[in-house]
Amino acid sequence: MTLESMPPSKAYRLLEPGPIVLVTTAQGGRPNVMTMGFHMMIQHSPPLIGCIIGSWDHSHRALRSTGECVLAVPTVDLAKTVVDIGNCSGSEVDKFERFGLTPRPAEKVAAPLIAECLANIECRVADDSMVATYNLFILEAVAISIDPERTERRTLHHRGDGTFAVDGRILDLRERMVKWRYLQD
Amino acid sequence: MTLESMPPSKAYRLLEPGPIVLVTTAQGGRPNVMTMGFHMMIQHSPPLIGCIIGSWDHSHRALRSTGECVLAVPTVDLAKTVVDIGNCSGSEVDKFERFGLTPRPAEKVAAPLIAECLANIECRVADDSMVATYNLFILEAVAISIDPERTERRTLHHRGDGTFAVDGRILDLRERMVKWRYLQD
Repeated sequence: MTLESMPPSKAYRLLEPGPIVLVTTAQGGRPNVMTMGFHMMIQHSPPLIGCIIGSWDHSHRALRSTGECVLAVPTVDLAKTVVDIGNCSGSEVDKFERFGLTPRPAEKVAAPLIAECLANIECRVADDSMVATYNLFILEAVAISIDPERTERRTLHHRGDGTFAVDGRILDLRERMVKWRYLQD
Repeated sequence: MTLESMPPSKAYRLLEPGPIVLVTTAQGGRPNVMTMGFHMMIQHSPPLIGCIIGSWDHSHRALRSTGECVLAVPTVDLAKTVVDIGNCSGSEVDKFERFGLTPRPAEKVAAPLIAECLANIECRVADDSMVATYNLFILEAVAISIDPERTERRTLHHRGDGTFAVDGRILDLRERMVKWRYLQD
């Protein structure tokens, strides 16, 4: 895998389509990863992301104490791993080891990147005031790295029940999006 | 179009995959519709949905004053309309008329369903405390209707720049999702 930087302001290009993502954290030097389907962009600039990480998730404590995580975007080749990661807990197993994921040092946070993913979005918690009520963390994207060399770029969209829609063809309607042209830069 | 009811608790089956959606409102009996890409599930039960509707959007005022909206899920056949709806304002045009959309009475809210969509999720505002800070509305799904007869069921995932990933093949990994079996009911 090679890594190429992308401005954090481009996080919406990766997350607005709604792919299932992997969330990495590192507490006391110990990396962990979970699967997350409840997330959205909140604003373009600064790039804020809302995500739900349950208080029952091992990652919840790590995120609260470190204030940092990485949202890694997997593609279809990792589908089974994505499901299996969501079905065990970091309190019991080292998921990076169990699932053969390669942690790579991030640029701005302690949480690791996942070498096997298409893109990695480094995030810091920007607002935790909704965590107590909804387990809703508001993150700010502070760095993004992508793998420009990988050919498999089809992401997965979890339909909530263990079935996933895989990206099919890409429709290009950019010329109709006159009001939001600046988002195409 | 025929309409079939689906429990509101199943909203995640429609929204967790991250499709672009249409949001309808009705203020003073006047229906309006906008395109929305920033939304997520917040919890399964009761079914809470987070969505960003900018204070600059005509629908923002309608949603604040009525507390009701419908999230309609379009499919690929409506792609151009989805983009065009997002590029004009209900303050200037009757978008149902301009785009040939058929409003249908909803079961529990005043906002209309869109007959041309795959599914319609009727929602009430459950929490508007984050609206001032982030334009973030927390909605509760109170009714869902789907069109079981339509053959085109591929939804659209906005990549943020006017390009869309269309649903491709469906991967069925339900047998691996042991921890969350109850979500498959």
